[in-house]
Amino acid sequence: MNYSNLISDKMLGVKASAIREIFKVAGQPDVISFAGGLPAPESFPVAAIKEICNKILDTEPVVALQYGISEGYAPLKKLVLERMQKKENIGSEHDDIIIVSGSQQGADLTAKVLLNEGDGVICEEPSFIGCLNTFRTYNATLYGVPMNEDGMDLNVLEDTLKKHPNVKLIYTIPTFQNPSGITSSLAVRQGILRLAQQYGVMILEDNPYGELRFSGEPVPTLKSLDTTGQVIYLGSFSKVFSPGLRLAYLILDKGIMEKFVVGKQATDVHTNVFSQMIAARYLEDYDIDSSIAKSRELYRHRCHLMLSCMDQYFPKSVTYTRPEGGIFIWATMPDGVDSGKLMLEAVERKVAFVPGNAFMTDVDAPSHCFRLNYSTMSDEKIEKGIEILGTLLSERL
Amino acid sequence: MNYSNLISDKMLGVKASAIREIFKVAGQPDVISFAGGLPAPESFPVAAIKEICNKILDTEPVVALQYGISEGYAPLKKLVLERMQKKENIGSEHDDIIIVSGSQQGADLTAKVLLNEGDGVICEEPSFIGCLNTFRTYNATLYGVPMNEDGMDLNVLEDTLKKHPNVKLIYTIPTFQNPSGITSSLAVRQGILRLAQQYGVMILEDNPYGELRFSGEPVPTLKSLDTTGQVIYLGSFSKVFSPGLRLAYLILDKGIMEKFVVGKQATDVHTNVFSQMIAARYLEDYDIDSSIAKSRELYRHRCHLMLSCMDQYFPKSVTYTRPEGGIFIWATMPDGVDSGKLMLEAVERKVAFVPGNAFMTDVDAPSHCFRLNYSTMSDEKIEKGIEILGTLLSERL
Repeated sequence: MNYSNLISDKMLGVKASAIREIFKVAGQPDVISFAGGLPAPESFPVAAIKEICNKILDTEPVVALQYGISEGYAPLKKLVLERMQKKENIGSEHDDIIIVSGSQQGADLTAKVLLNEGDGVICEEPSFIGCLNTFRTYNATLYGVPMNEDGMDLNVLEDTLKKHPNVKLIYTIPTFQNPSGITSSLAVRQGILRLAQQYGVMILEDNPYGELRFSGEPVPTLKSLDTTGQVIYLGSFSKVFSPGLRLAYLILDKGIMEKFVVGKQATDVHTNVFSQMIAARYLEDYDIDSSIAKSRELYRHRCHLMLSCMDQYFPKSVTYTRPEGGIFIWATMPDGVDSGKLMLEAVERKVAFVPGNAFMTDVDAPSHCFRLNYSTMSDEKIEKGIEILGTLLSERL
Repeated sequence: MNYSNLISDKMLGVKASAIREIFKVAGQPDVISFAGGLPAPESFPVAAIKEICNKILDTEPVVALQYGISEGYAPLKKLVLERMQKKENIGSEHDDIIIVSGSQQGADLTAKVLLNEGDGVICEEPSFIGCLNTFRTYNATLYGVPMNEDGMDLNVLEDTLKKHPNVKLIYTIPTFQNPSGITSSLAVRQGILRLAQQYGVMILEDNPYGELRFSGEPVPTLKSLDTTGQVIYLGSFSKVFSPGLRLAYLILDKGIMEKFVVGKQATDVHTNVFSQMIAARYLEDYDIDSSIAKSRELYRHRCHLMLSCMDQYFPKSVTYTRPEGGIFIWATMPDGVDSGKLMLEAVERKVAFVPGNAFMTDVDAPSHCFRLNYSTMSDEKIEKGIEILGTLLSERL
């Protein structure tokens, strides 16, 4: 059967993520992969999760295995909201929380609730490929705003808002951004908020890495600065607990929450109850902050090792970000060098990374940038891989 | 902030499910609820799941807790496909399987891949409110085809296809349908297939209850009769294992699978890995068929008890289906009696059910039908609740 006439317009244009193909190569055991974006498996609290599973299945098995409600498991909602109020000063009396099946679903629900086909979404350029693809599956028009060292270029942001009245949403990862590692300054955050208010658009603040700061001073979340209900805050358990359990949450104004609940219900009824209970028990009975502190130390060490190897082996014409947290470094080669071609050569030498074009609104335009991930590699592999990459770069530039 | 200008057209029209409001009442401890659609909690294999969790966390914790792939956990895909090939003769060399986070997500992905706004979906009338709402969130136009005793009225189906060239999908629950309990005959299934081929539309075969047959003879699934790749088969673990774990699967032609994978990736990246591993181990190391056989016995008993109480207490002017499996009975009162009003009176007498309008393409039109669920109630409550309902019906009719 020929399905081509049956496929929706919005899905016709969406391609399988280029990263997926890279991962097939990067997953080979002899390849040193800086392509991924996974948390370090050492950070998973396996023993605690095992204790918790036994406790849940001994005491409340039916709650864990029966249908739940679309808003999420009530004790988890309460624990997360209290923690976020304390940590980030977010979640006022106007706000409520909904548990979702991972951050990607948070972006999907936001798109479902807000976007008609053709509506505009402003994103940082570069930005997280996964959420850009989510917006593409709603036939949204993406407008990229280039990133400076302190976040989105506010002049371009304002011009974009002025020029495109179809924009309904600004998508930002303000802290340790994927893929750039950049943290938006307080001034940029305030500027984004001001412009969102002025132009009447919403902001999706995607903050999966916010708790992984290993140097510098914290910057307030946009949500904590939001007085008008403009910000939809998206937090995640994937980088601080476990991504396999698919747990994230949206904190947003009660005035629009009902549509998110209805959307969630129509999408997958509710998030896995057993996993929600595991996370709730973990927050209640264990010390997540000390577990996160350990991850931070690990990532600090790996990031600094990678940066010092890059300082040593990379030609001076390659510049890169020096993140204060998170799991990504963004490298920029001289104009005109194609990181896609470089990646193919690197893979031949058994090193993988993700070329910059994957994170752009126009994925077909070559990019002279690339993303490096340091969260899961051993010291030895970081040193060896960066040396190989540095040699390749020196030969080509 | 006023969000009304920001909400997407497709979500503006979708209301919180009427059933949710009923469930708030039905969930009160002194109410006898025939409103639900939950599997019997006695059927959850708690001890096995506990053993499995310990085994997984002892031997493969990182696989369970790390990111997985969008297609699903490979061993689970293989086990389910083999089981379905054996049980239902479905899944040819043209087909592949993708694991999804519950049946609702299977319908959501199908809608995402196939439907532009305004495209038509033909559904049985009445049909499962959850999936109707999913299609509504894509701004699909729903066309209801009335159910006869043996399934969709094929003449109306053909007329609808003829009249509405915007139709892309026929949604059917052919076996122990929700809400009617009706099983489509082989002739109706063949007729639906023939018409789908003739008019070039797809079929979503939603079969969560198919294994819960407690009397009569099995009827082949549409997918097993499909020679042209027209049928997307949606199977679920919710009624035969656990709904809280949110596990279902789509079996469909490889020619269109890539779009489902991309859609899944953009929706929630992948389904909970830990839960997928639990289900895989259960299929491999335990006897799911004997567990399902026990559920069938339980549902047979409860269904027959409810029917015999209805025979005893309901006025003769009320007719009802006599399901051969599944968890629902559909009752029809004389024309003009409003089951919505009756429900309010029943709730005052501490009995709950779902009025028929909830399952219609036009939820605002009053219905003289209602749905009764028998899967989770004790014998005593079934007897008492049906007696109360019978008394109320006798007073009102």
